[in-house]
Amino acid sequence: MNLLLLEDADFVAADRAILRDRRLTHLHDVHRAEAGDSLRVGRLGGAMGTARLLRLQADEAELQVDLDQTPPAKLPLTLLLALPRPKMLRRVLQTVAAMGVPRLVLLNSYRVEKSFWQTPFLEPAAIREQLILGLEQARDTVLPDVSIEKRFKPFVEDRLASVAADSLGLIAHPGDYPACPRGVDAPVTLAIGPEGGWIPYEVEKMIAAGLAPVQLGDRILRVETAVTALLARLY
Amino acid sequence: MNLLLLEDADFVAADRAILRDRRLTHLHDVHRAEAGDSLRVGRLGGAMGTARLLRLQADEAELQVDLDQTPPAKLPLTLLLALPRPKMLRRVLQTVAAMGVPRLVLLNSYRVEKSFWQTPFLEPAAIREQLILGLEQARDTVLPDVSIEKRFKPFVEDRLASVAADSLGLIAHPGDYPACPRGVDAPVTLAIGPEGGWIPYEVEKMIAAGLAPVQLGDRILRVETAVTALLARLY
Repeated sequence: MNLLLLEDADFVAADRAILRDRRLTHLHDVHRAEAGDSLRVGRLGGAMGTARLLRLQADEAELQVDLDQTPPAKLPLTLLLALPRPKMLRRVLQTVAAMGVPRLVLLNSYRVEKSFWQTPFLEPAAIREQLILGLEQARDTVLPDVSIEKRFKPFVEDRLASVAADSLGLIAHPGDYPACPRGVDAPVTLAIGPEGGWIPYEVEKMIAAGLAPVQLGDRILRVETAVTALLARLY
Repeated sequence: MNLLLLEDADFVAADRAILRDRRLTHLHDVHRAEAGDSLRVGRLGGAMGTARLLRLQADEAELQVDLDQTPPAKLPLTLLLALPRPKMLRRVLQTVAAMGVPRLVLLNSYRVEKSFWQTPFLEPAAIREQLILGLEQARDTVLPDVSIEKRFKPFVEDRLASVAADSLGLIAHPGDYPACPRGVDAPVTLAIGPEGGWIPYEVEKMIAAGLAPVQLGDRILRVETAVTALLARLY
């Protein structure tokens, strides 16, 4: 936790917050904080800054908060991701939040196992928990917007073209395609497939919606690694 | 497992191999393979190709192997990595192998907890196991060379300059430094610090050995994510 994220409900005054949950435990056990310490904090959806620890007790901590910095810029990106397996989903959500992706669409694909859609990790509270871990890691305060599209065809046929409008639309797909561009200075809509990749029908449908396939070399990367590698190359 | 890796001991003839271990289990449980199936295989340290499954029984499988492809090129890179915490170490070893890093040096740093050096995951067999998972993921056959340097100062003072000779030497370090270069067409020696980063003394020592600090933006990434992001940006 490189940033202690405060939520509206933590504030008892404009510059005072009280903590009682896992963040309190973290202050005790990991930070080994003491009254008087200065901590990096941010307000979820708002500014970042420092807090002075006024009191640290077993059951609660009181902070005096001074928020004077804007959070880091997000990437100009919409990420479409075939729903990964549940364990990978959790890590990918952290990575997406840490890397500064503002919009994530979790999409169905032929090679997404149906059982993946049943995972409790897709519950809004579970998604939020992983996103917050990513924000705390990277020092950001703004939650990415995550939407869930359980049906590939209506999303890609009816809405993808408008989602990708005014952006460079890319499909990460192995094969004889141009290399993924580097250091682009433009908004991007990037589609990353499941383990085993998109099927040809899906690639065709996304091409019809205005996206173009690009490749990242011969190596087959895990989804989390592919997400990071593609974003690092694009921006 | 996107590539079934065969070792010398598996071969009973130049083009025949017998499997009995976790790879046999994988054929049964994950591939749900059947006699006659064609599989992607590679010989550890050698070529890649296909194998026909001649027999698949509960206790062993027999393959007829045809190896006619060279494995993918490695990156022209030596990666110096402050020893990560044990759980992260395992994932980083997979990532390093999957991304095509040929040489990894696990290095001490002031902010590496001493207990990390006691982990059984640093045993040669444990390191090899994770590297093989990375090779199987990415479809590569050549194990990275991993060396362990438990003392920062003698390594950096006496040997780093020759390790980094004829390469672009870079220290990933947050701060007011040039951005990490993109798409370089040269060998690189890249040093990535521990959680919390290198201390100033360590940065100075590496600068004295010919490396230069570069930064990757405001966001603080987990080690595994930082490794992937830096490699994807460099190459």
